[in-house]
Amino acid sequence: MAKEITSRVNDYSQWYNDLVVKSGLADHSSVRGCMVIKPYGFAIWEKMQAALDKMFKDTGHVNAYFPLLIPKSFLSKEASHVEGFAKECAVVTHYRLINDPNGKGVIVDPDAKLEEELIIRPTSETIIWNTYKNWIQSYRDLPLLINQWANVVRWEMRTRLFLRTAEFLWQEGHTAHSTSQEAIEETERMLDVYAEFAEKWMAMPVLKGKKSPNERFAGALDTYCIEAMMQDGQALQAGTSHFLGQNFAKAFDVKFANKEGKEEFVWATSWGVSTRLIGALIMAHSDDEGLVLPPMLAPIQVAIVPIFKGEEDLKKIEEKFAPLLLELKAKNISVKFDKDDTKRPGFKFAEYELKGVPVRLAMGMRDYDAGTVEVARRDTKEKSVQQFEGIGNYIEKLLEDIQSNIYNRAKTFRDTHIREANTWDEFLKAIEEPGFISAHWDGTSATEEKIKELTKATIRCIPLNNKQEDGKCVFTGSPSKERVVFARAY
Amino acid sequence: MAKEITSRVNDYSQWYNDLVVKSGLADHSSVRGCMVIKPYGFAIWEKMQAALDKMFKDTGHVNAYFPLLIPKSFLSKEASHVEGFAKECAVVTHYRLINDPNGKGVIVDPDAKLEEELIIRPTSETIIWNTYKNWIQSYRDLPLLINQWANVVRWEMRTRLFLRTAEFLWQEGHTAHSTSQEAIEETERMLDVYAEFAEKWMAMPVLKGKKSPNERFAGALDTYCIEAMMQDGQALQAGTSHFLGQNFAKAFDVKFANKEGKEEFVWATSWGVSTRLIGALIMAHSDDEGLVLPPMLAPIQVAIVPIFKGEEDLKKIEEKFAPLLLELKAKNISVKFDKDDTKRPGFKFAEYELKGVPVRLAMGMRDYDAGTVEVARRDTKEKSVQQFEGIGNYIEKLLEDIQSNIYNRAKTFRDTHIREANTWDEFLKAIEEPGFISAHWDGTSATEEKIKELTKATIRCIPLNNKQEDGKCVFTGSPSKERVVFARAY
Repeated sequence: MAKEITSRVNDYSQWYNDLVVKSGLADHSSVRGCMVIKPYGFAIWEKMQAALDKMFKDTGHVNAYFPLLIPKSFLSKEASHVEGFAKECAVVTHYRLINDPNGKGVIVDPDAKLEEELIIRPTSETIIWNTYKNWIQSYRDLPLLINQWANVVRWEMRTRLFLRTAEFLWQEGHTAHSTSQEAIEETERMLDVYAEFAEKWMAMPVLKGKKSPNERFAGALDTYCIEAMMQDGQALQAGTSHFLGQNFAKAFDVKFANKEGKEEFVWATSWGVSTRLIGALIMAHSDDEGLVLPPMLAPIQVAIVPIFKGEEDLKKIEEKFAPLLLELKAKNISVKFDKDDTKRPGFKFAEYELKGVPVRLAMGMRDYDAGTVEVARRDTKEKSVQQFEGIGNYIEKLLEDIQSNIYNRAKTFRDTHIREANTWDEFLKAIEEPGFISAHWDGTSATEEKIKELTKATIRCIPLNNKQEDGKCVFTGSPSKERVVFARAY
Repeated sequence: MAKEITSRVNDYSQWYNDLVVKSGLADHSSVRGCMVIKPYGFAIWEKMQAALDKMFKDTGHVNAYFPLLIPKSFLSKEASHVEGFAKECAVVTHYRLINDPNGKGVIVDPDAKLEEELIIRPTSETIIWNTYKNWIQSYRDLPLLINQWANVVRWEMRTRLFLRTAEFLWQEGHTAHSTSQEAIEETERMLDVYAEFAEKWMAMPVLKGKKSPNERFAGALDTYCIEAMMQDGQALQAGTSHFLGQNFAKAFDVKFANKEGKEEFVWATSWGVSTRLIGALIMAHSDDEGLVLPPMLAPIQVAIVPIFKGEEDLKKIEEKFAPLLLELKAKNISVKFDKDDTKRPGFKFAEYELKGVPVRLAMGMRDYDAGTVEVARRDTKEKSVQQFEGIGNYIEKLLEDIQSNIYNRAKTFRDTHIREANTWDEFLKAIEEPGFISAHWDGTSATEEKIKELTKATIRCIPLNNKQEDGKCVFTGSPSKERVVFARAY
């Protein structure tokens, strides 16, 4: 193997970190908690962005850009928002450096203190609703359907590449509506967009649901989420969509004149996904040899390794592949023809496995003469020898197969790892196994907190379209009308 | 007119600001010096990004992302860089807020002071070269051709929307090479990319040249630039490409083993363009009625205004246009069919003029019956009546005509506003006229500074492929071998 990766069974967490670093997705930086997203990792993010951006635009949204810096006082305007976000954040207090009079280097100029400190946005509801105040006067200005691609900073104490970093990249949608119903519909529409993206593009099945009050976004009346199961059975929240009611409109005094000319507060939603999705993608599908990327998000979909002794052999193989490269390009399939002669084929095979390239072709002179090619698929690691003739269509079909295979594999794993627990004993037993627990809950925050304290499991969501059934809370025995999903989570 | 705009002759600066705000491109924010880029302005930026990003990738570059925050000490590592950038910048000193014990709101937690202050990146050479140190060991790791799309903050004292804001969006390319020559070639290649983008996409002619030592990027051995002329005759630097020599490699100790196994410092370039280009676009082409956007960057290329009395008329016109909408979509031409019945056609015409939509179609029932349509082009404000049959191809051709017409118009203006000055009297006279001055200069910083002090004119560039001729410095009379370009600048 080119680069040693810790195996999942030995140390899942170390496996994840090895994979991210050694496959070239991201790296730690010299700045505490901040990562460098390397070109290979960023290429995945670009593919995610392109797909999501199109889905946002197809549902009527436009992009805009709001300031990075937020006056400190803005955070205090919405009571529960300040509790949630005005804590661990980066605070700008000065605007100038000067040469250190006592030596080399620079120091902060004590005379350049800001009158009011500025916070690097941890999320943008406050600055955006402060702006919307000037944009919204009448029902004719609504709905306002805006999205922003941006960086945000939250001063996390324990960080992990992609999953939890001080700075991360995300998109945040912020919409304004004239009725509560329209805002709720928007919240649900964007949850559906996220679920479709996760399942179709990331090949990652998700549960759609609502958060319990404890887990709601600070300032929301309702938080919807998609929850995915990682290979260790833990949950990962992959996207959230918030119904904010009139909370931010009231905090920033944003009113509109309705059709009858009467003033009302505006209704709001916000929704976001982040570079955290790359972490989810890795943990959902990859194995001990490296990444397993779904073809729809793989920066390189097909790697071609010619096996040759001299220039002449290479030239023959290159000429053989030339029309295929054009054909795949026309099919919008990204290909790398790797003729680097400083690395052996075996090294390259391991490297493309590590990088999760879905399909690998290899051709030596024996294949060349026989009119065949070796095809290896990354998801199952199966190899087969195929006729070179017609291989373009074979590859196109194979990429589709791989996309659906890894989705199905993840779905089977997920579905076989959701267990019902009907007593506290069953719950305690189930929580020691990987997976989710479906259990009745009495609906109180106190019970939720007690369960978390005892087991580290949280309520991941109350599934949408949940079956209604009479039951008893798994912890208190109080009556309950539906099951909720518990799990330990990232 | 829907919204009053100050005319250019009355107050060019106010005209610019009116235009930006009233056409809905951008707005001032509550945060000093920071702007909100509104959806219409951001749509232009997205088109610029898409075109540039493709050009970067076609020349072998990949995207990545580096941290927003830079340790203060990094800025001091390159001696001239610190002079240029470690001045007016946003300084993060704390990482937590707490509830104010004396009342409402939040205060900075005095216990959460950072050991070393962090600077919000004003540019990323330092953090990137600190990272490249870990990525480059051998000549096989070179060249490294990386670009980043990001926000940066420079604490400007006097700000103007798009042209000079505390936070702005940009791309910054940072490349690493094994030889000086390769790095210089890269610097020049990216200057050509910028010039092609400015001329082809923005329809804005530019002079390519080098900066005088005074105007170089802090840390560069050579700064190349493209300079454009605005309609008031002032210069605007639209993009820069820097040959950084080994300065950053030495500052961050980035060496590579060459083919002979000997260690050498790495050669560097950096290059960038920003949202400032939107300011240039506006000032290069627009008029007193509003924006004039080149079709290749216009968010809406064709606006269609049906003129109707009732639902029935509207329906007829809509049906008439339905196939055209599909045809234009297939041609990748963006169209807005505006059937809003709360606004009169005249209001809409003024609105689309304000927004710089290149082509406007209008159809009333008389046109409908006659099989004709009114076509108005934004650049010349000419209107004509055309046969509706075949109008799709007519529009496609018209958009191309408009693109080249506004380029030619700007080029004629530019070319007729570059004056030679051979004496100091001629220079003083010329500088009071709008335009650039081509004059001999003795090559000293002292002369350049004196001229700037007396006239506010700076050396915009020493044009590439400059004619070599014997002459005398326009100010000192000392011998000179070539003319340079002077102007007042944004």
